[in-house]
Amino acid sequence: MADSCKIDVTPGDISLQCERGKNLLNVLQDAGLELRAECGGEGTCGNCQVRIPGEKNFEYDGGGVLTSERKEKGYYLACQVGVIDDMEVEIPGSSLISGQQILLDGRDEGEYLEQSLESSLDIEIAPPYRRDRLELPPPTLQDNTSDLERLRRELRQEKEDVDYTISRELLGSLAGRLRECEWDVMVDTADKFSHREIISISAAEESDYYGMAVDIGTTTVVASLLDPENGRELSRQGEYNHQARYGDDVIARINHASKNEGGVEEVHSALIDTIDQLVDDLCEEADISSEQIRYIVAAGNTTMMHTLYGIDPNHIRHSPFTPTFSQAPPLKAGQLDISTHPEAPVYSFSAIGSFVGGDIIAGVLSSRLHEEDDMTMLIDIGTNGEVVVGNSDFLIACSASAGPAFEGGGITSGVRAREGAIEQVYFADDLEPLITTIGDEPPVGICGTGLIDLLATMQRSGIINRSGRYNTELETDRLRERSEDNREFVLVREREAGIDEDIVLTEHDIKHVLRSKAAIYAAIKMILDRLSFTEEMIQQVFIAGGFGNYLNVDAAIRLGLFPDLPRERFTFIGNSSLQGARRGALSASEFKKSREIAGQMTYLELSSEENSGDFMDEFVAAQFIPHTDLSLFSSLEAESKEEVN
Amino acid sequence: MADSCKIDVTPGDISLQCERGKNLLNVLQDAGLELRAECGGEGTCGNCQVRIPGEKNFEYDGGGVLTSERKEKGYYLACQVGVIDDMEVEIPGSSLISGQQILLDGRDEGEYLEQSLESSLDIEIAPPYRRDRLELPPPTLQDNTSDLERLRRELRQEKEDVDYTISRELLGSLAGRLRECEWDVMVDTADKFSHREIISISAAEESDYYGMAVDIGTTTVVASLLDPENGRELSRQGEYNHQARYGDDVIARINHASKNEGGVEEVHSALIDTIDQLVDDLCEEADISSEQIRYIVAAGNTTMMHTLYGIDPNHIRHSPFTPTFSQAPPLKAGQLDISTHPEAPVYSFSAIGSFVGGDIIAGVLSSRLHEEDDMTMLIDIGTNGEVVVGNSDFLIACSASAGPAFEGGGITSGVRAREGAIEQVYFADDLEPLITTIGDEPPVGICGTGLIDLLATMQRSGIINRSGRYNTELETDRLRERSEDNREFVLVREREAGIDEDIVLTEHDIKHVLRSKAAIYAAIKMILDRLSFTEEMIQQVFIAGGFGNYLNVDAAIRLGLFPDLPRERFTFIGNSSLQGARRGALSASEFKKSREIAGQMTYLELSSEENSGDFMDEFVAAQFIPHTDLSLFSSLEAESKEEVN
Repeated sequence: MADSCKIDVTPGDISLQCERGKNLLNVLQDAGLELRAECGGEGTCGNCQVRIPGEKNFEYDGGGVLTSERKEKGYYLACQVGVIDDMEVEIPGSSLISGQQILLDGRDEGEYLEQSLESSLDIEIAPPYRRDRLELPPPTLQDNTSDLERLRRELRQEKEDVDYTISRELLGSLAGRLRECEWDVMVDTADKFSHREIISISAAEESDYYGMAVDIGTTTVVASLLDPENGRELSRQGEYNHQARYGDDVIARINHASKNEGGVEEVHSALIDTIDQLVDDLCEEADISSEQIRYIVAAGNTTMMHTLYGIDPNHIRHSPFTPTFSQAPPLKAGQLDISTHPEAPVYSFSAIGSFVGGDIIAGVLSSRLHEEDDMTMLIDIGTNGEVVVGNSDFLIACSASAGPAFEGGGITSGVRAREGAIEQVYFADDLEPLITTIGDEPPVGICGTGLIDLLATMQRSGIINRSGRYNTELETDRLRERSEDNREFVLVREREAGIDEDIVLTEHDIKHVLRSKAAIYAAIKMILDRLSFTEEMIQQVFIAGGFGNYLNVDAAIRLGLFPDLPRERFTFIGNSSLQGARRGALSASEFKKSREIAGQMTYLELSSEENSGDFMDEFVAAQFIPHTDLSLFSSLEAESKEEVN
Repeated sequence: MADSCKIDVTPGDISLQCERGKNLLNVLQDAGLELRAECGGEGTCGNCQVRIPGEKNFEYDGGGVLTSERKEKGYYLACQVGVIDDMEVEIPGSSLISGQQILLDGRDEGEYLEQSLESSLDIEIAPPYRRDRLELPPPTLQDNTSDLERLRRELRQEKEDVDYTISRELLGSLAGRLRECEWDVMVDTADKFSHREIISISAAEESDYYGMAVDIGTTTVVASLLDPENGRELSRQGEYNHQARYGDDVIARINHASKNEGGVEEVHSALIDTIDQLVDDLCEEADISSEQIRYIVAAGNTTMMHTLYGIDPNHIRHSPFTPTFSQAPPLKAGQLDISTHPEAPVYSFSAIGSFVGGDIIAGVLSSRLHEEDDMTMLIDIGTNGEVVVGNSDFLIACSASAGPAFEGGGITSGVRAREGAIEQVYFADDLEPLITTIGDEPPVGICGTGLIDLLATMQRSGIINRSGRYNTELETDRLRERSEDNREFVLVREREAGIDEDIVLTEHDIKHVLRSKAAIYAAIKMILDRLSFTEEMIQQVFIAGGFGNYLNVDAAIRLGLFPDLPRERFTFIGNSSLQGARRGALSASEFKKSREIAGQMTYLELSSEENSGDFMDEFVAAQFIPHTDLSLFSSLEAESKEEVN
């Protein structure tokens, strides 16, 4: 057997060479093929499936989750394959991250986007980074104060009376630059909160400059290119976070960073790659050069911020869950290897804890929750569910681990919201499902909104009971035994599906979803209990996160994910993290406000000794549809009574 | 002839190799031999003399100043020699910078030092760099705020309620460091004026740390090692500024920096070399490691500060004499390649103009002039004479180029204040001089204080007239013709001298000294005129600079260098620049005060259109002994009348 093995990959007819003994997933990822590996290569997510035709000339210990159906068809988990000889590999689209398009302009964020562009106009445009034209009086013998003091004097008189610092490098070119430009210059300065820094001196005819707002999500990163003169958004681009190769959720990323030598640098680089891709895309669409992006405002969860700055996030995941920082130090793009102008300052939103990050602060800022008179709740649903309650008087937040179910993770036929994802299901009387998919494409799986809708509908239709178990008395061949004590319902048969297997919902899947919704509902309950509030006291609810406008509020209440409040109290606010980052990028005072919000917000730690018991009780009680305590969902009770009558 | 030539150097039996065609001065300097080259290698100062025995196997165009006596003895100016073959070179001690010992503890600064150590106790010790022990409460689930916020919170509560920043590097090690130290840490923070920076986190048992105050003079650099806990000075060291190889005064240094490729870096490196030598010396005496020096406070003239920061000083010397900066940006030792701890912040005193630098501001701070009720004048005498007038109500300063005469430069037998330098001369009735030298060593030349004393005495004794010309009717063979229209007086004959030639004072030398003293007196006169003050209104005069306590005030007044005020109004304050730097190093509020002083001080530019004519008139009028207007020196008039009576 050869020391170097050849791997022929389809589709794409790619031919790779690798050392004998290498892990196949790593080889493919190193070659730039972004395979899904939500579990970080542990064999537990089952998403890095590849088909390996021909004889079994590789190592495979049979570990990892894979259905017998898939096994029969020649599928293996790439993370469990050791390369020992030349081999052929087929990668199905469903195993590739890049195969999943981010729906920026489609059903998902697009419509909300229009609305938010409108609403962003309520702030005065005064970004933390500024370019001012200064016509300095040239030095004379009567006024021969130094070049730097001349500049500072003018900035203080004309602009802002604060301390102005300068780097040694810029100082070295200052005298020449001012004279070349004949004292008529554009001066870029950046807000450093306690002072400002002079970032560049250029000729008065210098080209335009731009700011970038970026929401760094665990799954997707979305960036917005902004014109700091008028606040206009010139382009918005999304990209799956390239860190996905190291795992799907923050815990997997932290594990990868902390447990591997060079791991911190790897997750950092993967994120920077992602951001650089967005920089390229923004610049291409707006027809500008990346050097023209002169400042960045970023919002993301605490783990993402640690990886952005290249700081080991290890302590985030171990009790007592302490991040290294919540307010990041001021850095420049060049220090982080971001491909914008290297002197571009990077501003990032402060976190308040390991699991309530800057994305939530940005969300509060964007939603104006901190200015509301009405008692308001913000719910951000992702792999963590964060809940904020408050108004202009106080703010309190908590977070619960919801798991990846709402993003399709850990669900047999789960997919992210993409074309072909099932998002609504009706059942005819004969229990035949009528499904709607995103983009009306052949169904490829069920996304988060689809799962919520599906479970609510199944329970209402009597297909599942309140515990999430199938009604075994149903007369349909769609319901079948999958494994011991785990039935499944076939929503789409293989022949009608856009993939080569049945699309199903198992009882285990239902359990997953119920656990996820229970975690979020329990977090809501905990925060209200600690405030001695009833649900009714919440006058409005903002729903943030990837669900967008397409989540059916009624289904979410029926499922017991959201509290049973009048439906008109709910508002979807979309990617409020990006919206907040845009506000910060266009208004220094808004960014400062975000630091105040972070400073004022109380963090309710659900895993603390005094809270964890209560939380666990709430969590268990909420694993029913909608809840073990039906009195919490009285509108549903009334409705079902009506039905009965 | 060989392409590579061998140069045998004595003393030291050093053997050098160099390329054919190289300049001898450069070759010797590159080998680390610090030859004097006050003119920067132009052949005009005559100080890089070397003896080259044997046949003349080298290029020499005969240029440069050298007496025929020296020529006969086989001396050449190294700067004028081109190496074309192997050769032998003898370097006399008088040509070496290192041959001239800085009198730190001898007659010069030493006695003043004792006094100042005493007086420095009037400030509260609270340096701008601080190490605080913090026993942080370890994180718990009830209090799991981030490591950085925990640190900031404690610093704000326990120490100072300001913004604290941190570098990415330190942040990267923060979590590990705090846990290794079990939350009981020493935290170093540095004042950044608008905020503080966290510089290091170390274990509670960490070793001691120190501060360094440094006065960066054009000629000498003096550094002081300070214990920031109690303000004690542990060591003081002096070193000739290694930039001397590029010229003796700031103009020569600027020329070298600006006119040669890499020149800015060369003068920067030469200064850093000097500082590193001092760091070594301080550390050796105090038995500490250089890494234990954790902050630096520097005072120096504007050109020195530009070369310290590696900034081209070019514009300082061209009208309208505009420095690039007067308040330096905050930098760290590592950025400047200084061999202390690389994270040591470097604080430097602000200048107010190209020729009134941070050394003068430090001098004002040290003298407390800014707190005086009495109208006070500070005179700092070096190659520039700086004059400050003011009190607690106002401050005004100006500067005039005095030339190097008071440091022995451009004077036939001039030397710096060192052992063997003539500092006092009496004339017996037969005009035989009775001389006193520093250290009672055989005379090697005349230093600045000696020149002042000598001229005042010669005029009083009738050896020279008020114009500085010799009385040709004197009956002594010590007076002789040197060249046309240039007589010289032999003070010490070669056989009695510590050097192998006569020690003389020529009429050209006297002219030099008179021009120097006239420049300083004219500056004093200008500043008083602009204030509409009479000399009498000056209630006290502080004399700073290298002269130390050994300048005869009476002689200085007789010469017309100082205004004719009651002698008791004069106080010598020694190296007030170093004293000021020490104050700044021990007290953040004193350092801040220095920035206020610089901000409040008015700069009187003597070369401006409205001043230059008047200054020139004053300068010409002052080139007599003591002055053309004798009414300005009425005490001398009265005295001479008494003598006549």
